[in-house]
Amino acid sequence: MSQRVILVIYDIHDDDLRLKVAAFLKRSGFARIQKSAFSAPYTPALLSEVEAGLRRLLRERDRYDVQVYVMPRSSYEERIVMSRGYTPEEGEELLI
Amino acid sequence: MSQRVILVIYDIHDDDLRLKVAAFLKRSGFARIQKSAFSAPYTPALLSEVEAGLRRLLRERDRYDVQVYVMPRSSYEERIVMSRGYTPEEGEELLI
Repeated sequence: MSQRVILVIYDIHDDDLRLKVAAFLKRSGFARIQKSAFSAPYTPALLSEVEAGLRRLLRERDRYDVQVYVMPRSSYEERIVMSRGYTPEEGEELLI
Repeated sequence: MSQRVILVIYDIHDDDLRLKVAAFLKRSGFARIQKSAFSAPYTPALLSEVEAGLRRLLRERDRYDVQVYVMPRSSYEERIVMSRGYTPEEGEELLI
């Protein structure tokens, strides 16, 4: 099992670009953990792929902030989650 | 210097509750790194305080997901940031 986890969090103003980023992360094998947060087991290849893909999608775009973290699996698994009445996909379908 | 960093990411449906959570994190000494993401140097006391404060704010509320990570400082400092035309406070003032 991978010893590290990739976490991607983003805030993207444009609806269309935001949906494209989410779709790209899903295609790359990431799991959605919040509407604007995705995680996947770390591999060097996946990190390279996701960084390159995000840079390609964001090229010549504006008003965005995307952050990619690589953390130990323990940091990820021991995170504190407070959640109620929440599904990460909620709302997105309305925009498609 | 603290060897770890606390990262808080959230998705909160209610505007008023979302502003309260942001204000609480700022008061607790967190820095805003995205509209819905805050970070601070880890101490056991701060982690306890922030968890208790968030649980208090979220009590009897609905439609939220809040996640609190504690990661090595290296994971935080080596994160990849892609950002353009972005300020994390943008948009929030409109709601106040």
